[in-house]
Amino acid sequence: MSERQLSLNLFIYPNGHHEAAWRHPQSVPESSMDIGYYQQLALRAEREKLDAIFFADSPSLAESGHEGLRIRFEPITWLAAIAAVTQRIGLIATASTTYSEPYNLARSFSALDHLSKGRAGWNIVTTSMAAAAANFGLDKHPSAFDRYAQAEEFVQVVGDLWDSWEDDALVLDKTSGVFADGDKVHAINHVGAHYKVKGPFNSPRSPQGRPVQVQAGSSEDGRDFASRHAEAIFTAHQTLQSATEFANDIRARAKAAGRDPRRLKILPGISPYIGSTEAEAQRKFDELNELVLPHISLGQLRRMLGVDLTGHDLDAPFPRHLINFDSSESQSSRFKLIIDIVDREKPTLRQLINRLAGARGHWAPAGTPVQIADLIEQWFRSGAADGFNVMPPAFPEGFEVFLDEVLPILRKRGLFRSEYSGSTLREHYGLNRPDSRFSLKSA
Amino acid sequence: MSERQLSLNLFIYPNGHHEAAWRHPQSVPESSMDIGYYQQLALRAEREKLDAIFFADSPSLAESGHEGLRIRFEPITWLAAIAAVTQRIGLIATASTTYSEPYNLARSFSALDHLSKGRAGWNIVTTSMAAAAANFGLDKHPSAFDRYAQAEEFVQVVGDLWDSWEDDALVLDKTSGVFADGDKVHAINHVGAHYKVKGPFNSPRSPQGRPVQVQAGSSEDGRDFASRHAEAIFTAHQTLQSATEFANDIRARAKAAGRDPRRLKILPGISPYIGSTEAEAQRKFDELNELVLPHISLGQLRRMLGVDLTGHDLDAPFPRHLINFDSSESQSSRFKLIIDIVDREKPTLRQLINRLAGARGHWAPAGTPVQIADLIEQWFRSGAADGFNVMPPAFPEGFEVFLDEVLPILRKRGLFRSEYSGSTLREHYGLNRPDSRFSLKSA
Repeated sequence: MSERQLSLNLFIYPNGHHEAAWRHPQSVPESSMDIGYYQQLALRAEREKLDAIFFADSPSLAESGHEGLRIRFEPITWLAAIAAVTQRIGLIATASTTYSEPYNLARSFSALDHLSKGRAGWNIVTTSMAAAAANFGLDKHPSAFDRYAQAEEFVQVVGDLWDSWEDDALVLDKTSGVFADGDKVHAINHVGAHYKVKGPFNSPRSPQGRPVQVQAGSSEDGRDFASRHAEAIFTAHQTLQSATEFANDIRARAKAAGRDPRRLKILPGISPYIGSTEAEAQRKFDELNELVLPHISLGQLRRMLGVDLTGHDLDAPFPRHLINFDSSESQSSRFKLIIDIVDREKPTLRQLINRLAGARGHWAPAGTPVQIADLIEQWFRSGAADGFNVMPPAFPEGFEVFLDEVLPILRKRGLFRSEYSGSTLREHYGLNRPDSRFSLKSA
Repeated sequence: MSERQLSLNLFIYPNGHHEAAWRHPQSVPESSMDIGYYQQLALRAEREKLDAIFFADSPSLAESGHEGLRIRFEPITWLAAIAAVTQRIGLIATASTTYSEPYNLARSFSALDHLSKGRAGWNIVTTSMAAAAANFGLDKHPSAFDRYAQAEEFVQVVGDLWDSWEDDALVLDKTSGVFADGDKVHAINHVGAHYKVKGPFNSPRSPQGRPVQVQAGSSEDGRDFASRHAEAIFTAHQTLQSATEFANDIRARAKAAGRDPRRLKILPGISPYIGSTEAEAQRKFDELNELVLPHISLGQLRRMLGVDLTGHDLDAPFPRHLINFDSSESQSSRFKLIIDIVDREKPTLRQLINRLAGARGHWAPAGTPVQIADLIEQWFRSGAADGFNVMPPAFPEGFEVFLDEVLPILRKRGLFRSEYSGSTLREHYGLNRPDSRFSLKSA
């Protein structure tokens, strides 16, 4: 058994991460409305001892043409209903610092951590979809720089609220009638550029002290933020080299910020196409790509690159000259990743569309179970990854084949657990439970 | 079987509605942190075919002296975990229009309605606790008038968002690749005094069309609001006369607003003390009152009346002359209810404290099962109530005795169901499922 172990999350996307997954013959798109479907996926992941399940989110409608509408249920509520039928698996919800109130968001995650007995994680995002602004009274989506400045303060406030009841503040002494020790319940009196929050919080400190903090932005601002606040980082890389550079950079920043880089899990996305032969794996990819509707994919590309390529020849080389780095709404890390693919692989427009349909720019290797396990081990042992966000191209097959064929190989190599050793998400990830900053003060 | 049937909710308060319930010998105060405890209460209520369970809420810490701290878990998340283990019972969460964002709140309730298959209800409050303001960057809690004006617009926006996907907007046609019909998914383009929300929503219309709208303020502003927006009204009355006047007033207002008053459930709180004799019932009340700590109760009284009576002789008559109607923060209906008790019953300070400890001003009759059933029937048949919010003084005993001793009498009299006839909260309450206002437009 290797001392260092892989962390593996299941990233749940309604019918799978391939854009056309819902059109796959095996797919039941109606089930994407049904909590029972998600509960079954979570139970399956838990039977295989995965660390966590994860939901992305944005407080706006994702659209790319009328037919490309997608649904997004509010993930904290959704995860609470999944928590009720599971015992050990972590539960990570995405929530926006730009479009939430810190007191409300702190309460929702605290409730999730309490009711799941310590399994909650918060994927901290600043929301990249500009369309969200119009749902919250803003004329303009704030710049990435401004969003991260606000996020910095937001995270501070939420952490203080979670800490405001010290761990031993609850007394519950029937005889004396003392319910809680008021000296251990603290106003936070936060006054900053964006928020003024007095506190205290209105429920006791949650089982993990603080839900696990996850972060997913890989831009310059995002890396800076992650190196200071994230305990796990979700990221997208197409190559070992890019992932290694990213991991080294993040660890160096974390160290510079005074943190132990080993307490930071770097988890790239992987959307594997798995077949008993390479050819079969490739066929699975092709089969899904044949279901892609180019006009929907072009809409997505427009959102990611800021350029509408409708009408261009799909089988001609991608028109690289039309892409202006300044035309992007936010110079996002996803933008750079796509340009990297274009410059490295020189794809046709259709090839790029299919590439992105695979998992929106995440790593989508195709191969046999051994080949996929080899890649995972390579990224893991080289330090490019501490584990992965597993993004099955299509449910159920793409997930089942990973669990049935790849996971046993990783286990045999001593890289992944056969049993949970802990019961909280912090324990699965090997993270310490933080003390309340208020107990530290009074100690 | 009477044609008109009682609606009965279980109003869940951690260890019971009596202020000192957690100190009762049978109470397990630790369980109030445990979702399993609440799930068991909900399952018990569901076995008895109650209409719904209900949680109050405020985004602030309830405190009345250090020892009187109380906890409040965010109720939508909490109810989602209860939804997962129940099948039929309604799930009503309180949420504030003053301290939430409409897009976020609409999403949480929509998710709860989806995952519970149509059992969600929203108790719309404007938040009466002034302390909440300081948790949301406000120097001053808005006046009741301003809060209701904002609530009016908030409810409009949330309803429009819930309606923005017409019921048949989802297509899910694998062959053509049409996921949804974009012509049936509408921007709401709301621009008002408080909110600017473009929409559309990012998930399909929920099973009930709209979660059931509940309202609990009985002030002048509250009644006006309720008569226009509420489908169920929670209210507090000490006498049949007061309840009757309220019910008649609300029904007249609803009628004037063009609504069918029969589609509006008026549900006063009842916190019954039940014994095999009147004396035993009274003993149960006394037993809890002996556990009341006067300094905590005086803190609550200070919050409700705006006057600190610490140091006054508990056994002297209540010092009515110190209460100034203008000293109240909001001239709330609860304020008036307390003054009514004082003027009608001329209690000592201790008697008033015990009276309020019973259920914060709600009706708390003591009697035998037949006497309690008689009172319920009297209020129901006279039109003062369409049902009740049942507020057990202490769990588990105060709830069990109601279910085991009172409910069978009500059933025998044909006043309450023995089986659910529907599966959604709307069906339990006999409320229609509203059409989307956007389908109405295009029809």
